Amino acid sequence: MQLKKPEQIGHPFSSETAPVESSIDIEHAARVLDGHSRLTPVHTSSYLNHVCDADVFLKCENFQRTGSFKFRGAFHALSRLPSNTCKNGVLTYSSGNHAQALSHAGAILGIPIIVVMPVDAPVIKKQATEEYGAEIIFYDKSETTREILAAEISTKRGLPVIPPYNHVDVIAGQGTVCKEFHTQIEELDYLLAPCGGGGLLSGCAIATKHVNPDCRVIGVEPAAADDATRSFHSGTIQTVHNPDTVADGARTPYLGHITFPIIRQYVDDMVTVSEASIISAMAIVWERLKIVIEPTGALALAALIEKKVAASGARVGVVVSGGNVDIRAVSSLFERLPNGDFSARSSQ
Amino acid sequence: MQLKKPEQIGHPFSSETAPVESSIDIEHAARVLDGHSRLTPVHTSSYLNHVCDADVFLKCENFQRTGSFKFRGAFHALSRLPSNTCKNGVLTYSSGNHAQALSHAGAILGIPIIVVMPVDAPVIKKQATEEYGAEIIFYDKSETTREILAAEISTKRGLPVIPPYNHVDVIAGQGTVCKEFHTQIEELDYLLAPCGGGGLLSGCAIATKHVNPDCRVIGVEPAAADDATRSFHSGTIQTVHNPDTVADGARTPYLGHITFPIIRQYVDDMVTVSEASIISAMAIVWERLKIVIEPTGALALAALIEKKVAASGARVGVVVSGGNVDIRAVSSLFERLPNGDFSARSSQ
Repeated sequence: MQLKKPEQIGHPFSSETAPVESSIDIEHAARVLDGHSRLTPVHTSSYLNHVCDADVFLKCENFQRTGSFKFRGAFHALSRLPSNTCKNGVLTYSSGNHAQALSHAGAILGIPIIVVMPVDAPVIKKQATEEYGAEIIFYDKSETTREILAAEISTKRGLPVIPPYNHVDVIAGQGTVCKEFHTQIEELDYLLAPCGGGGLLSGCAIATKHVNPDCRVIGVEPAAADDATRSFHSGTIQTVHNPDTVADGARTPYLGHITFPIIRQYVDDMVTVSEASIISAMAIVWERLKIVIEPTGALALAALIEKKVAASGARVGVVVSGGNVDIRAVSSLFERLPNGDFSARSSQ
Repeated sequence: MQLKKPEQIGHPFSSETAPVESSIDIEHAARVLDGHSRLTPVHTSSYLNHVCDADVFLKCENFQRTGSFKFRGAFHALSRLPSNTCKNGVLTYSSGNHAQALSHAGAILGIPIIVVMPVDAPVIKKQATEEYGAEIIFYDKSETTREILAAEISTKRGLPVIPPYNHVDVIAGQGTVCKEFHTQIEELDYLLAPCGGGGLLSGCAIATKHVNPDCRVIGVEPAAADDATRSFHSGTIQTVHNPDTVADGARTPYLGHITFPIIRQYVDDMVTVSEASIISAMAIVWERLKIVIEPTGALALAALIEKKVAASGARVGVVVSGGNVDIRAVSSLFERLPNGDFSARSSQ
């Protein structure tokens, strides 16, 4: 397996080499999160089973605190920082779910959070992050990158950084999604999870193979942002730039130097799905299962509906990563759907 | 209490007088529904508690089979019909949730269902009812009423009728919503439920007062379809005609001669809410609680948010009646909302 060095792929914060599994302590994360993260429900639907020709189980992290799985990794990573290192606060860069998750975790743990965010991030994201009490530092994307700016601020203000995915404690936290899932639903044949920077996928892959080595782990990306799929198959980290996908959580330009080797080792396959199938899968879940999931949260289900995974008759676990949407914005996506794609009734 | 005779308010199917409570057998309904209806979850949200200045518990019948509480009453009423009376099928008139619920109950119990529906009912409602295997008889609203047509067909084909709400077994079935709710959440100070024809409200009121006589039961209607509120306060059944409200489940023109006296006896108050607050409450639940509810399902919560009920500091049970929506149609409603009314993050 060819693994590029971090420098080659632009990670300014780390010179670690690929970790051994033992540094991803999912058991520890589960203990830390006990009483803080929610045990999210698993939803099923006879309609979905029919459409997918499989027994489908949706692990609903849209019901997690702050509306996505990101709370798990953020809270775990933050709680592991030695208290003397974070007295001035902790820094991150994200305009999405990780920013909100870390901000909320900081509020709970009494640690100030500083978020580097592009000045043109959606107002709704800024508001949500501010509501959780974080300080936001805006930057102009045409002048610098978030990683470079964060590194500068980190040095200047003496702030440790918790990045969105390329961090062993973040990955361990995300892994608790599947540690929990396998206790709720046993003997899964497949585990499908979306992939952006790979924090969720790598944590879930380790947790799954630990519990059930025969369960096939499949990562899913938008075809328009297929860097991880190309990386997986080529053996070197590939990139995308400003991909045009509705799945904003999967716009991440590349896997991390920590997540990439884990995905190569523990994930069985990576597949991609079209924009139309992401929107259609999301609409089916909203209308039939009566739950709000975000486009990124629909990725794994889209792969199943699109028959990108040969799971006929199998027991398939699907990780729904989150449910944070501006419903006014997402609603306009549904207008793209052909009539009769799905209908207004329940799943039974 | 003045109670008009059925003839005066146009109910062609019944000459019963107001029932005594004993004919509404919620205990029996609960036994019949055991293993058939879903024990629907109760959702909470610290954001909602903050907005409402109360401890708010949402009983989520959007997760019920067929997407609304209607399954309970339909299944119970259908299961109580003597088998020799329904060998040719059972008739109802509804273009909404009751039609789908009865059709699905019929499919489970092996009883053919015939639904009288206006020819201009939404395609999505026709499709959903047909998918459950019911026969649909269309009629032209300019030529006859659904009640008259159903009475004619009932006589001609020898079919018993299960109407949407004015039926003791339907009411008993709907009452199981609150029988269940009070076992999940104890010591509620208030119970709020939406009101269309009053089947849900009357069943829930009986169930609530049986368990907890001190719990105040409040019915909620759209201001644009306030017939039940006027009936409640005036003591005679009032009507509305083709009310212009997004809450399609509350467009029912009048209470039934069975539901009205129950509501007068067991309900403590009736309040109305604006269209804007229905849409806003629905949007908050979609975005913050990540669950899809229909406009009628948002009525009771809208009353709480609008402070139409003096429930500051109280424990308030809110019945969310259903989640059947055409998301493309409902999404356009959200465009009416002012910016900043709610934001894209989770409830904690």
